[in-house]
Order: sequence, then C-alpha cells, then structure tokens
Amino acid sequence: MIGIFIVFEGVDGSGKTTQLSLLNKYLCANHIATYATREPGGTPLGEKIRELLLNPDFIDMQSRTEALLYAAARAQLVAQEIRPRLQQGTVVLCDRYIDSSLAYQGYGRGMDIDFLIKINQLGTGGLNPQLVILLDLPPEEGLIRSRKVGPADRLENEALDFHRRVRAGYLELARKNPDRYLVLDARESIQTLHQEICRVVGGMVGA
Amino acid sequence: MIGIFIVFEGVDGSGKTTQLSLLNKYLCANHIATYATREPGGTPLGEKIRELLLNPDFIDMQSRTEALLYAAARAQLVAQEIRPRLQQGTVVLCDRYIDSSLAYQGYGRGMDIDFLIKINQLGTGGLNPQLVILLDLPPEEGLIRSRKVGPADRLENEALDFHRRVRAGYLELARKNPDRYLVLDARESIQTLHQEICRVVGGMVGA
Repeated sequence: MIGIFIVFEGVDGSGKTTQLSLLNKYLCANHIATYATREPGGTPLGEKIRELLLNPDFIDMQSRTEALLYAAARAQLVAQEIRPRLQQGTVVLCDRYIDSSLAYQGYGRGMDIDFLIKINQLGTGGLNPQLVILLDLPPEEGLIRSRKVGPADRLENEALDFHRRVRAGYLELARKNPDRYLVLDARESIQTLHQEICRVVGGMVGA
Repeated sequence: MIGIFIVFEGVDGSGKTTQLSLLNKYLCANHIATYATREPGGTPLGEKIRELLLNPDFIDMQSRTEALLYAAARAQLVAQEIRPRLQQGTVVLCDRYIDSSLAYQGYGRGMDIDFLIKINQLGTGGLNPQLVILLDLPPEEGLIRSRKVGPADRLENEALDFHRRVRAGYLELARKNPDRYLVLDARESIQTLHQEICRVVGGMVGA
C-alpha cells in the first residue's frame, strides 16, 4: 500500500462533508491524486444498501440487521474502490468508516463492540486508515445544524441521549488510538478547521 | 419457545419449495398453525436485500459482501417473524437458513466457516432449527431442473464444481448434526418424499 487512507468522522452536522471537500480541493490544487468517497455507499451496490439504511419506512430494522448492512456496504467499497486506489498510490478520503459503526451501533446502541470490530475487520480484510479526523461537536448543536439541510432521517430521529453516547464513543476511540486520531473542535470556523487539517495532511503527503 | 422450527435445504432445483408447500398443506389440513417463509427475504427489508443478492447486474459483488447481506436479511427475518411465531407455538417452515450460507459461501466459495457461523449465530441470536430436511441431489441434475423454470440467475451461473462443493458441504453438515438432519434422496418421486417428510414431522408435531 503506497497511498494514504484518511477518514472523516463525527456526529451528524459536524461538518465532515464540507471539510472533506475542502481538503480534496487543496490536495488537487497541489497535484496530488485523490479519491473521495462516502459511507455507506460509494459503489452501485453500496448506494442501494445506503438507500435501505436511510429509508424511514424500515422503522422495524433490527440493530443486528443494521450493523450487518453497514459492514456489507463497507466490504464492497473497500474491495472494489479503496484498496485498488491505495495500491496505485492515491490519497483516499472517506466520509465515515468502521469507527462510525463502533460509535453508533456499539457505543450508541449498546451492541457488542468486539463483534462489530470482528465483522468489520473481516469484511474489510483488516484495512485501517492512517488518519481519522474527528470533528467533535456537542450533539445538540450537530442536530440543529443537520436539520437545516433537509428533513430528519431515521438516525436523526433517535433520541438526543443516543447522540451523546455516540459522541462519547468517538472520544473514547480517539483516546484508544492517539496515533491515528486528529480531534478537532467542530465549532471552530470552517477556514480554521481547514487550515489545521491541511497542516496535518500536508505533512503526511508532502504537499 | 413452544413452536417447532423446520428448515428445508438443498442445491438449486432439489425440490425444496415444492416439498415445503406440500408439508404446509398437510399441516394445515391437520389443523396445525404454520408460518411458511423463505430466505433471503421474508420481510419487506429482506425482500429488498434478496433483490440485491439475486441481481445479475452486481457481478462484482464480493463474497464478504454477499455473506454479510445474507446474514443481515436473516437477522431481520428471525427477529421480525420467526421468533415471535415460535413463541406463539406456530410451526415455522423456512426455505433455506444458516446452513445455506455455510454450504454456499463456506464450502462452495471457501470462506472461513467459523466466521460465517459467528456472524449468523450473533445475527439470529443463536436460533437453530429443530429439523433440517436436506433434499440431496447430484448438482448436475439440480442445475438441469432449475434451468427449466426460468433464466439462470447469478448463483446458477457459477461453475458446476462450485455446486459439487456445495453438495458435499451439505452432506458434511448432516454428518456433523445427525440429530437435526433428515437427509432424503431428492431423485425420489414428489409423493414418496412428501410421505417420508410427513412421517417424520408428524411425529414431532403429533399430527
């Protein structure tokens, strides 16, 4: 693997998509080959799975079903897109990855963390990112932000307590993986966050 | 659990669906409450997952993705339909279950059997059938039979060697679980098979 795998994580509304897009533009402007994708989705099959996961009609979706669907979409994305790009030396930027499952299904919904790690490690063939950029935000503020964009989806309808556990889960993952995690306060301005991300990523890719 | 959970297994074209339907009619005629379902599918969400699994457009579906999608559909079916019916005392008849994943993905495609068992046991909360009726058939004959019904789907397009491994896998599962398995020669007549199934199941349900 000669490419670099960078993941953006955080609660809904924390600005992941905005910062990923800005970083992508910065790297492209510096003539660095990038590939930007998102989870769940990123492949034709994964997008179909994403539709199922975000469809509010499936309110009776079991948490086990949900975890397995996320792992399935992820397995497909890694094998079909991410791994081949990394082998070509591309910088891969991904909006959410395994730690989203650990934070949402594990810490948020109380599923067994070891099980989630196992299905995801096997599903991805053990592919972990070199850098996880966590945009940390109090969930109250994240929910308000994401509501501005469109109607609430199934995950956003979950209780605020759930989102608090998700945030705490992310922070615990960051404490457990300090070499991999960059934790930023998502309440900083878009430009301030972008500059800090460019500084760290620029050092990794030599931009 | 006061109901009885009965699963039909076998290679494509072995007559599972026919025999399940005949058994269902026999039990209904004997005033026994039944619930007949199939895998993958059996729930609105599961049927959507089934569409993805059987769609020939997704020729690049990874075997890991496939195994996780089957486990997801199964987790949903068990939690939403099978477990509640068994708790009501219903006889549940299911066309394929966990051993289909072990036979096709495990023995057929060479995936790690222990992993498949683990994701399926966790996905279903450890729900195993009391009886597995294996309709054993040489795969050459099964493929010919199923081709008569309609155009070949993605699984049927796999090589014949694959189907030979699947059949051998089923027979190994039967040897490992003799208390649970009823192995029948699917080349027998429909009526002969039906009578033998009624004899065994009748003894279990008191019909």
